[in-house]
Amino acid sequence: MTGRWEPPRVAPLPGWPQSDLMDHAQARAWLATALEEARAGLAEGGIPIGAALYGADGTLLGCGRNRRVQDDDASTHAETAAFRAAGRQRSYRGTTMVTTLSPCWYCSGLVRQFGISRVVIGEAATFHGGHDWLAGHGVEIVLLDDADCTALMRDFIARHPALWNEDIGA
Amino acid sequence: MTGRWEPPRVAPLPGWPQSDLMDHAQARAWLATALEEARAGLAEGGIPIGAALYGADGTLLGCGRNRRVQDDDASTHAETAAFRAAGRQRSYRGTTMVTTLSPCWYCSGLVRQFGISRVVIGEAATFHGGHDWLAGHGVEIVLLDDADCTALMRDFIARHPALWNEDIGA
Repeated sequence: MTGRWEPPRVAPLPGWPQSDLMDHAQARAWLATALEEARAGLAEGGIPIGAALYGADGTLLGCGRNRRVQDDDASTHAETAAFRAAGRQRSYRGTTMVTTLSPCWYCSGLVRQFGISRVVIGEAATFHGGHDWLAGHGVEIVLLDDADCTALMRDFIARHPALWNEDIGA
Repeated sequence: MTGRWEPPRVAPLPGWPQSDLMDHAQARAWLATALEEARAGLAEGGIPIGAALYGADGTLLGCGRNRRVQDDDASTHAETAAFRAAGRQRSYRGTTMVTTLSPCWYCSGLVRQFGISRVVIGEAATFHGGHDWLAGHGVEIVLLDDADCTALMRDFIARHPALWNEDIGA
């Protein structure tokens, strides 16, 4: 990690714009918070997806992880956990949801409903959620194609396919 | 309430099919469960939206209500509360989400991600969420245009506009 801006590592796909607005070194620093949550979830025997919500000024508002296994709670995805941890906010303008994995429809809906401005995504190789839909509705998408995030999910899905399918309703 | 099938009370809108598959007397009976949750929420000082998730065999799997005020929890909408209360399910095929109010994008995303088959909606007059989008993705939509649900929300929004706007990220 350097302090310098990194160019996007993935080419824009048709239909959604890969953001080139955000400093990718900043995005990677924030992703580390989400990845720490994901790894903590794995250590608990849970599904290793983590997220963090950052304010417009860069303050960490809240973070969390998938809690399906830990709490027997189907409703707590990483992004909803981070959103809850951030408490009640009057506005989400300028906030960034950072997540280790492309957000599913449930979590994409959360982002759209509350007007979260940007989503930083660790990877979308193991699961492609609703981030192109969000981009089409004006949300800035930063897809980092992070090797550590991809390895974490790829390994987990290979070991626990039934649990993974349960988590995405497949 | 009679045991007889009632025709839909609202005309289909362009772009989404109003379901004529479901027995509306059954839908109204299920709506009563969600409305009871909404009224309990109002009595607690909360936002009066309730929901219930019914299984394919008509079993009540779980119900709940918006808990923004009661728990200071921005993440618990009525539908997500009902979903959580239903516990971990292997499949949502054939299930029906019943809600007093048209589901917001967050809750519409939940329905789409987990493959909930049908949404019964008390009313969409005070708030129009993502139910046309869901219909376009194969979810059966039953919009009941219920006067009690509409009055409950209309009165609440008039009394607490800031709280309502907070809940929908407006």
